[in-house]
Amino acid sequence: MVQYSPKLDVAFGALADPTRRGILERLRRSEAGISELADAFGITLPGIRKHVGVLEAAGLVTTEKIGRVRFCRLGPRRLDDETAWIAEYRRMLEGRLNRLGEFLERTKGAPS
Amino acid sequence: MVQYSPKLDVAFGALADPTRRGILERLRRSEAGISELADAFGITLPGIRKHVGVLEAAGLVTTEKIGRVRFCRLGPRRLDDETAWIAEYRRMLEGRLNRLGEFLERTKGAPS
Repeated sequence: MVQYSPKLDVAFGALADPTRRGILERLRRSEAGISELADAFGITLPGIRKHVGVLEAAGLVTTEKIGRVRFCRLGPRRLDDETAWIAEYRRMLEGRLNRLGEFLERTKGAPS
Repeated sequence: MVQYSPKLDVAFGALADPTRRGILERLRRSEAGISELADAFGITLPGIRKHVGVLEAAGLVTTEKIGRVRFCRLGPRRLDDETAWIAEYRRMLEGRLNRLGEFLERTKGAPS
């Protein structure tokens, strides 16, 4: 019954932290080095490396070492599956609310 | 810089598990008792209670005790903020890809 989707697990897990969402929002503007991110978020280098590692495992961030600096940029994943899952969930929920509305409408004038 | 949003944290965290997404998918069809869910997913009652607790804390599931049975149903939250966050993220990513495309287009015929 359970649809195992490790990609959804790691992506939603990656998004479940304010610093990690903040890193993604920062990287929208431009790529950034690890220590630049550490400064921006006021956390330690090992701390930022851990967060970047989670984002990298989820495919949301790519890193590349250029000289002595490890640069981070967005991609390659675009949260397509996560968007699809949430959209489908909302569609079904909407359908249930509509059916409840129709039921209430139909029974409004009925004798109780 | 980090936008703290505990609601996003708990909602994305709640979605980062296949059993919890499975429970939401099951509850789309109809409400269900805790032991019915435990049977359906082949896990223990304490296990299912823990998952339902996480979903309840995220506002994705409501429970109500009727007689000796605790029933679970969807709601009240509809993942509006999560949808908005992901949509905004994708919009920005799309914008960056378009700008990159325009840059490549402009420089295609240029002497290297």
